[in-house]
Amino acid sequence: MQRLAQAHDEDEGVRSVCLTRFDGGRAVSAADEVVCEEPLEIRLDGAALAVVMRTPGHDEELATGLLVSEGIVAGAGDLVSVRHCTVAERAEADGNVILARLRPGLAVDLAAVRRNLYASSSCGVCGKETIEKALAAAPPLDDDAVFPAEMFYALPARLRAAQNVFARTGGLHAAGLFDAAGGLVAVREDIGRHNAVDKIVGWAARSGRLPLTGHVLVVSGRISYEIAQKALAARLPVVAAVSAPSSLAIELAENAGMALVGFLRERRLNVYGDRRRVVG
Amino acid sequence: MQRLAQAHDEDEGVRSVCLTRFDGGRAVSAADEVVCEEPLEIRLDGAALAVVMRTPGHDEELATGLLVSEGIVAGAGDLVSVRHCTVAERAEADGNVILARLRPGLAVDLAAVRRNLYASSSCGVCGKETIEKALAAAPPLDDDAVFPAEMFYALPARLRAAQNVFARTGGLHAAGLFDAAGGLVAVREDIGRHNAVDKIVGWAARSGRLPLTGHVLVVSGRISYEIAQKALAARLPVVAAVSAPSSLAIELAENAGMALVGFLRERRLNVYGDRRRVVG
Repeated sequence: MQRLAQAHDEDEGVRSVCLTRFDGGRAVSAADEVVCEEPLEIRLDGAALAVVMRTPGHDEELATGLLVSEGIVAGAGDLVSVRHCTVAERAEADGNVILARLRPGLAVDLAAVRRNLYASSSCGVCGKETIEKALAAAPPLDDDAVFPAEMFYALPARLRAAQNVFARTGGLHAAGLFDAAGGLVAVREDIGRHNAVDKIVGWAARSGRLPLTGHVLVVSGRISYEIAQKALAARLPVVAAVSAPSSLAIELAENAGMALVGFLRERRLNVYGDRRRVVG
Repeated sequence: MQRLAQAHDEDEGVRSVCLTRFDGGRAVSAADEVVCEEPLEIRLDGAALAVVMRTPGHDEELATGLLVSEGIVAGAGDLVSVRHCTVAERAEADGNVILARLRPGLAVDLAAVRRNLYASSSCGVCGKETIEKALAAAPPLDDDAVFPAEMFYALPARLRAAQNVFARTGGLHAAGLFDAAGGLVAVREDIGRHNAVDKIVGWAARSGRLPLTGHVLVVSGRISYEIAQKALAARLPVVAAVSAPSSLAIELAENAGMALVGFLRERRLNVYGDRRRVVG
C-alpha cells in the first residue's frame, strides 16, 4: 500500500505526480500537478452525516454550505461551530473530518437527512415529486431582480481568470458568485461540481451574506437539477453556465421563478426557466 | 405546479423546452431540446436502496451496473430479475422505479450498502483508508494487457461520433467501451458521469461480458476516484479521458495495476498509475 510519495500541497488543492507523456509514438517521463481529491467526513453533533469526495481547502465552507443547501440548517446562525477534528480527538483524522455543532435547542432528524443524502438531494420517485419536495424546503423566489444579457457575456472569462488550480491541473470545476453589475464576489474550485457550489453557499452563510438575492452564480459544467436546487436554497435568482441545463433543472427553475442561462459563449446565451429575468 | 408541457421523448433522453435566445442584445423565443433528467429509485428485494438522478434509458443496465460497480453483487448471475415497476404495482411509478431481485440464498447487508452509498462510494475518512477498502472489495488486476499509445488517439472522435443525445442537447456525459484494437463495443450517455459508467458495466454484466479484461473505457469529463473505482470493479485495465484525473484516482490506479490516460487530445496523451500498460 503506497501513497503518492510527492509534494503534498493541499492548501492549493494540487499534488505532484509522475506520468508518462506520449507525443505521437514518443514517450517521456515527467512530473506534473493534478487536482487533489480526498474524502471529507461531515459529523453533526457527533454523528456521521456524510462523506463527500472533495478537493481539500475551504472545508468549513463546504460543510456549512452542504448543511444549508440541503436544507438541514437555515444558515450559519444554526451552527455553534464548524471546525476540523484535531489529531488529539481522532488520531487518523488526517484533515478529513469536520465537526459541526447545532445551536442548543435545535434538533435535526438525522435518519431523514441521511435518507435524503444517500438518495441524492431531496428526491422523489418522479420528477414532479422531486420538485414539490424541493419547493416545500425552499419556496419559490419572491424578488423581481432582472439582469441585462450584456452583463453575462464577460462572466465566463472572469471566472476562468480567477481559477488558480484549474490553470495548473486542468482538472477542476468552479463556481463563481457575481453581483448584479457582473463583479466577481467569490470563486471556489473543487473536483466535484456540487462541492464548488456548496463552498460558495457556505462562504456566503459564514460571512452573513445569505440570502443571495440580486446575485448570479456561474458554474463550470452542466446545470443539473441538484445545482439548481442548491442555488434555490441560497435564494439565487440566476444560475449561468457555458454548458447546457437539464430538463429537471429547467422544470425546477420554472416553478421557482429562477432563470437558468445556458450555452453562455462569446456574445450568445440561452435563457430557460423564468425567462423574464434576463432582458435585452 | 406545472410540468414541462412539451413533447416527452424519454427513449432518446431528450425533452423539448421553450427558451429565449440572446445574440448580443437581440432576443428571440425558440424551442430546443435539452437532456432529460429524472430520479430513478432502485429497490433490492423490495427495499429502497438508492435514488439516482439519471437520464432515462437503459435503466435496467444502470441498476445492474450500480449493483456490480459498488460491489453489492458479483455479476448478473446474482440477480434473478431487474425490471421496471409496473403501474399496477405502484401507481406513481412513472417509469422511475426499478425492482431488482437477488438470487435465492444470497443476502446483502442493506444497512451497510446504504451507508456506503450515502457516504459516497466505499469511502474511508482518509485517502489511504478509501483505497484499502476499494482494494478489499476489488483486488488489484492480475492481467498483463498493454496497449499502444497510437490506438488511443482515435478514440475520442469515435466516442463523440456515437453520442446521439449529445449532438442534440450538448448536455450529456458519455462512457464508451472499446476493445484492444480500438473498436467501439458499446456507448452510453447520461446527465451523470457515474451513471454512464454504470450503464456500461451493467450492459457488460447482462450480456455475459464481465470481467472486461483487455478492454478500455473512455469517459467524457474528468477521471475522479469513483470512476476509477467502478472501472476496477469491472476489471478494466485502462480508463481514458480528454480531461484530467484526480490525485485519488491515480493513487487507486497505482495500487490496482490500472492505467489512467488523461488529456487525450490530438495525438498526445498522459499516462498515470500503472504506466507500463501504454507503450510507444
